[in-house]
Amino acid sequence: MRKITKPALLLDKEKCISNINKMVLKAQENKVMLRPHFKTHFSAEISQWFRGFGIDRITVSSVSMAKYFYDNGWSDITIAFPFNILEINDINSIAEKCNINLVVVSKDIVSFLVRNLTRKAGIFIKIDVGYNRTGLDPDETGEIEEILELAHTSGKLAVKGFLAHAGHTYKAKSADEIKKIHQVSLTIMKALRDKFSHSLPGLICSIGDTPSCSIVNNFPGIDEIRPGNFVFYDLKQESLGSCKKSDIAVAVECPVAAVHKQRGEIIIYGGAVHFSKDSLQTGKNVIYGLVVETAGDGWGNPVDGVWLSSLSQEHGTIKAENERFIKEIKAGQTVMILPVHSCLTANCFNEYTLLDGNVISRSRP
Amino acid sequence: MRKITKPALLLDKEKCISNINKMVLKAQENKVMLRPHFKTHFSAEISQWFRGFGIDRITVSSVSMAKYFYDNGWSDITIAFPFNILEINDINSIAEKCNINLVVVSKDIVSFLVRNLTRKAGIFIKIDVGYNRTGLDPDETGEIEEILELAHTSGKLAVKGFLAHAGHTYKAKSADEIKKIHQVSLTIMKALRDKFSHSLPGLICSIGDTPSCSIVNNFPGIDEIRPGNFVFYDLKQESLGSCKKSDIAVAVECPVAAVHKQRGEIIIYGGAVHFSKDSLQTGKNVIYGLVVETAGDGWGNPVDGVWLSSLSQEHGTIKAENERFIKEIKAGQTVMILPVHSCLTANCFNEYTLLDGNVISRSRP
Repeated sequence: MRKITKPALLLDKEKCISNINKMVLKAQENKVMLRPHFKTHFSAEISQWFRGFGIDRITVSSVSMAKYFYDNGWSDITIAFPFNILEINDINSIAEKCNINLVVVSKDIVSFLVRNLTRKAGIFIKIDVGYNRTGLDPDETGEIEEILELAHTSGKLAVKGFLAHAGHTYKAKSADEIKKIHQVSLTIMKALRDKFSHSLPGLICSIGDTPSCSIVNNFPGIDEIRPGNFVFYDLKQESLGSCKKSDIAVAVECPVAAVHKQRGEIIIYGGAVHFSKDSLQTGKNVIYGLVVETAGDGWGNPVDGVWLSSLSQEHGTIKAENERFIKEIKAGQTVMILPVHSCLTANCFNEYTLLDGNVISRSRP
Repeated sequence: MRKITKPALLLDKEKCISNINKMVLKAQENKVMLRPHFKTHFSAEISQWFRGFGIDRITVSSVSMAKYFYDNGWSDITIAFPFNILEINDINSIAEKCNINLVVVSKDIVSFLVRNLTRKAGIFIKIDVGYNRTGLDPDETGEIEEILELAHTSGKLAVKGFLAHAGHTYKAKSADEIKKIHQVSLTIMKALRDKFSHSLPGLICSIGDTPSCSIVNNFPGIDEIRPGNFVFYDLKQESLGSCKKSDIAVAVECPVAAVHKQRGEIIIYGGAVHFSKDSLQTGKNVIYGLVVETAGDGWGNPVDGVWLSSLSQEHGTIKAENERFIKEIKAGQTVMILPVHSCLTANCFNEYTLLDGNVISRSRP
């Protein structure tokens, strides 16, 4: 049985495996390749759980992360971040042994790769489908054509296709809005592939975000999906409709340091360095997490009227409008808290504590 | 000369030493003990810079941090966090070799310590001077008296005095408001000491926050100050009036990954996992950092009209309303960015890169 003395990142393996299983099934039913993003878990051991479902291609968000997973047995990796030319030496070193796909956002970057790559690599052309973070505008077909031409004549770069991340789904107000965003992505991506596949057959369309991949059930014209957060989910995803609260596979267990009954507040050892600072507006409250009930070795439903209301560096403040809860809680007990954004929360820790107390390691940037 | 390929936490040692020097002088002039908080830098090497100024007593925010600094030569440590009874074994182990002061917020906790401590330790009674995070209300003199009595008869616990952290200075709208908050803290703390010093002479008053310690010049009745953030400062402190922008001693250097000239935006390799997510409202903009000009090996003033406007996990978006800047910047260059909250930003890294390229390590929770 686990016994924590300071904040610990709990992982409910059963929920995690179930989340992986559901996404694997959805990909199979839709005949799309699942190339999961591993930035959320960043763990060699969790990566093996994916292996158990036959996954052999992955997505990462940095060259360091690509190295980590290559060192842990993965040999087909897309680095879904605009290629950073300062890391060319690292890329040349890793591409020696591993199938690497890079993401490019301009022909200048492709020219640089043609001149400086010493090994073969795949490239995806990043398309801005409306998130407006980065990527080529779908109308920039001239530049896309030049990239295809540059790559084709280089003998080094294999153009794999078009890649998009519809991150604006995270700002959607409803599942319907997410479906509409997804529909726009599909239309843009298919049009591009149709336009260019006569000159370069076999181009694929790859999309990424967890809200779309979770909420949408049909992916006509899409070849590959790259969701990441679904491995754990979190309160933000639940608020978008991507999952149920009971699907959330991680919680932070924190010691109670002080109880202020009169004002209905509890101070925990657990702050911004354990949760990160993403928050969520729910009704009239801004929350940083939800306290859940104990259930067996793990957790059950959120406790009514009890939420993480503020974070400083190591202190967290829990607001409890639930009289029974505030009456019974004592310093020296622990509480389990569902995070708002599991990617950033997990990144605060070096390890996961499974419900049985076993620990598995994770890396950090 | 340093040459970075991925986000790096730069430290301008000269500015850092100057910040330390100023606070040391202020403490000397006011005849108060400076017991600096080491949570911001969390680095054995930086701790030695303080040693150079004769500092031999420190503050930390966790038992793990106390262990780290004990292992690195510090032997008089206040753990400025409400004592977490789940860590009693660790405390017993460290108190064997090190002078440890614990912070207590209730007589129940003190009873627990009396029953379970195997070594002697000091305690500070945490007083809530208006921040309303934790601590005893100054009116709870009955409970304070019981704590003093419990400790006195225990033979184990030496009551050092009263400790406060006026964290509400971070929400102040002006330097004057910070001075007023400080005045209230002084009044509360002195009254408590005056009330109880007849029964227990030698009780001290210890206050903590960087805004008060930076802005206020007089500390009548205060014996000890425990600021931490001043070692680096940051944009939040500058906005409060604690420092000038030119005092900020850390910046994050990030590769430019993509330039979107038409919409005046730049995508950097540098995201929430490098900056954390604290933001600041400046005029009409919410900013996550300010891009600064290159000056020698380090940085100079902020570039007009260029700020970090949004963060996802590894991507940062810089908004540039400065036409010259957006015209000249190119993928593959780097930018230096002053952080909003240096404590949380530094906590994202394992090391500091000095301007000459040398690297010094830091720890993380």
